[in-house]
Amino acid sequence: MPLKKNEVKRKKSVSFEGDQEKIILSKTYPTTGILSKIIVGVILLVLLYQLYMYIQVSIVAVPVLPKFDLNVWWGPNNTKVQDSSIRPYRIVLSDSMQENLRRKFESYRRATRIKSFNESSEYGINSDVLGQIFAHWQFKYNYRERARYLNKYSHFKTNVQGLDIHFIRVKPEITDNVKVLPLLLLHGWPSSVKDFYDIIPLLTTPRAGHNFVFEVIAPSLPGFTYSQGAVRPGLTTYQIAIIMRNLMEKIGFKQFYIHGEDIGSTIGSHIATIFPKQVLGFHTSTPVNFSKLAQLTLILGAVFPTYIAGDLADKVYPLKDKMNYFLEESGYLHLQSTKPDTVGIALQDSPLGLGAYIIEKYLLFTNPNNKNIQDGGLSTFNKMDLLDNVLMYWTTGSITTSLRLYKEVIDNYDTEEALTRIPTPVPTWGLRTKYDLIHQPDFILRWKYPNLVGVTNLDDGGHFASFEKPNEVADDIFKAVKNFLSKTE
Amino acid sequence: MPLKKNEVKRKKSVSFEGDQEKIILSKTYPTTGILSKIIVGVILLVLLYQLYMYIQVSIVAVPVLPKFDLNVWWGPNNTKVQDSSIRPYRIVLSDSMQENLRRKFESYRRATRIKSFNESSEYGINSDVLGQIFAHWQFKYNYRERARYLNKYSHFKTNVQGLDIHFIRVKPEITDNVKVLPLLLLHGWPSSVKDFYDIIPLLTTPRAGHNFVFEVIAPSLPGFTYSQGAVRPGLTTYQIAIIMRNLMEKIGFKQFYIHGEDIGSTIGSHIATIFPKQVLGFHTSTPVNFSKLAQLTLILGAVFPTYIAGDLADKVYPLKDKMNYFLEESGYLHLQSTKPDTVGIALQDSPLGLGAYIIEKYLLFTNPNNKNIQDGGLSTFNKMDLLDNVLMYWTTGSITTSLRLYKEVIDNYDTEEALTRIPTPVPTWGLRTKYDLIHQPDFILRWKYPNLVGVTNLDDGGHFASFEKPNEVADDIFKAVKNFLSKTE
Repeated sequence: MPLKKNEVKRKKSVSFEGDQEKIILSKTYPTTGILSKIIVGVILLVLLYQLYMYIQVSIVAVPVLPKFDLNVWWGPNNTKVQDSSIRPYRIVLSDSMQENLRRKFESYRRATRIKSFNESSEYGINSDVLGQIFAHWQFKYNYRERARYLNKYSHFKTNVQGLDIHFIRVKPEITDNVKVLPLLLLHGWPSSVKDFYDIIPLLTTPRAGHNFVFEVIAPSLPGFTYSQGAVRPGLTTYQIAIIMRNLMEKIGFKQFYIHGEDIGSTIGSHIATIFPKQVLGFHTSTPVNFSKLAQLTLILGAVFPTYIAGDLADKVYPLKDKMNYFLEESGYLHLQSTKPDTVGIALQDSPLGLGAYIIEKYLLFTNPNNKNIQDGGLSTFNKMDLLDNVLMYWTTGSITTSLRLYKEVIDNYDTEEALTRIPTPVPTWGLRTKYDLIHQPDFILRWKYPNLVGVTNLDDGGHFASFEKPNEVADDIFKAVKNFLSKTE
Repeated sequence: MPLKKNEVKRKKSVSFEGDQEKIILSKTYPTTGILSKIIVGVILLVLLYQLYMYIQVSIVAVPVLPKFDLNVWWGPNNTKVQDSSIRPYRIVLSDSMQENLRRKFESYRRATRIKSFNESSEYGINSDVLGQIFAHWQFKYNYRERARYLNKYSHFKTNVQGLDIHFIRVKPEITDNVKVLPLLLLHGWPSSVKDFYDIIPLLTTPRAGHNFVFEVIAPSLPGFTYSQGAVRPGLTTYQIAIIMRNLMEKIGFKQFYIHGEDIGSTIGSHIATIFPKQVLGFHTSTPVNFSKLAQLTLILGAVFPTYIAGDLADKVYPLKDKMNYFLEESGYLHLQSTKPDTVGIALQDSPLGLGAYIIEKYLLFTNPNNKNIQDGGLSTFNKMDLLDNVLMYWTTGSITTSLRLYKEVIDNYDTEEALTRIPTPVPTWGLRTKYDLIHQPDFILRWKYPNLVGVTNLDDGGHFASFEKPNEVADDIFKAVKNFLSKTE
């Protein structure tokens, strides 16, 4: 049944309800006679008070930061002594993996038997795009060479709260008196540390005019690729935030900077909220305030788009178009946040199905116009890069545990939302790309990030900022941290 | 992004908007002085008129029945002469299919590597349920025996509007002076003609006290299992309605009865609306009026549940619970109606993934409480029955074309909705099962079906009525048609 339209319908009907009420009121209590005036006045006062209390309690009030247990155990409850050391790790892409995939690819024709309508990518990944992905994967993707490439950075694993957490650690080569600042890079879904491969050398190389450089820690989120998933429910973004902070402490960093993207930005924001003294600065390429108040303001602001959103007006409004776009693109969110394990079975079992599911997001979220192109914009990407990321999910069999994160967010929504309402004093910098999914004006960001030092508007790029625009993002991180430092000096 | 909560939020915010407006009005125009009263009056009149026009035009008004082209060509545009005969068809389940599946099952461990949290089926199909499905499919499902069973009815194929349409046709054995009435059985998604295997003999066997019996025509919907899918966009439910009516005419039935379930009920309703003179009676186990007015009425009626819904009150309300339930269970709808081809790639390629995706619907829509059980209620089913249906989709590689129907419904929503507002004079009978997804009071059904002869409330069963309760559904169809006939006699 037509969900999309349902939405529109519900909205209309509710505002109709509002009008209806007004009409009933005006009919039942004509404004003549002192008594009826008093009655209307009292009713209005009661309504106003209820509204005021609702807004106060559920929308505006800043909740008290919940007390979190910082040592929740997410691994199996066994009596084995846990190896808590930090061990080197190497990514493996073997001939036998390739052989196994080749065998699976024998049934490729089956998956493409359904011809697309061939006009666009409007129905999802079409058979042309799938054919190109397949051909590249089957005939050009060189497993050994890619394994060498992926191992060019130092990989490690260590156990935090019962889970083996994987991370890349790259120290800069410094020659002169340059400060080394620890920077935690947090990827999103369906991304992996692979998204940071091009930006890492840019961040770890000293640059002129900057007396600092970064030491990069890029972990895989628990349940994503090389990091273990939880064995019980509840590992939502703020719990991952705690794991990430504990990981940084374990590596030896009491204080650090953060750059986050997509759900990694949410996690970074939670770290800055729960541990404000440990986060020296927060840079995000997904600058969004997810609080109810922010969303409400944008909805009410639809009446005066330019007044509310300024230069961003055409990115924030018209609301109906944005809402339709969101509904059209959020089917995967809806499914993942309700039945991750069901869709996960097919994605764990079909390499091409997994590839299509992941690559669709890269194609559509870098530029929504790719939807109208027959090849979905695939030709503008280096297919090797896209496949590296798919193989990280495939070889680790981790797509289901990654999908579960969305259900955890829904199941723990009250605390998730409360955290978006608690301002953090951490110096913050936002990078808005042209085609990102959500754009919000600065004043709304400031409710969550009162110490918003700056915002950069990039007239290019989309949701996967570091992957698409490593130079611009690296420049922006350097710029942001320079500003953070000058404020504290 | 928490879709579920988003919904609630939007609703709240919109009603807040309404209240806000009221407050602003009362502040800006205090009801003193004749001029301000006139201004308020005029504003209210304008609002009232706009509201009235909106309701009239977009919700209440009965649209004119659109003129449909009854011969749209959905097959390839080639110059080959089309075989338009009606050919016998046999379902094939071969050893090589089994062999191919066994090879695919070698990677089964991969799909179950992700252990479920094992408390419930809350995250979707869990590894216990998957394990049982797998074991039955791999070790107990006898392909040859099932093929014999599935071929016990006469199968046919014939080309209608460019597409090869498959159907089962079963004539009753009549000994005495009993009228034979043609009955079109329309299945839904993710069902197939398999759902009707137990009910067919009940419908084609004469019974005491009834001077009629049915000849059954059960087609596979275009794009579902053995019927070909369209090669271009647009084959939505009312276009399928036209194909089904043309099929019936081709077989030789100018007039016939219809029983529909799920989206098959929508199609049956459209046939009764577009061709009212050809439909002698319409029986549905999904008695729902999908018009905006129906939904609006149910939303407004939330204030007086018992008044609106009578005995059904606890099935229709509280609205918030029903809405949350709907959101929790409709992720697949959201995905299928926006990106059918993407998720289709994995489902075409992974037999276990397909099985899980389809069987989940059977488990949850027969009884929502199955969600809280570790085995998802699987033990209450005959697994052979569930797998027959999965194999029909698997062996024909038709899941993607079946998913596309949801996108077509969205893409053609205006006409779809208009058709729900055009009443049909066809005698109609509804069967409400206990656990069906949507329940509506009779008076709302009558807006669409003014000739609603009767409604049966079954205190058992769920969404797949014929599959779950063949005896009860057959009894009800006989009862309904007896009533239809007595009205015309």
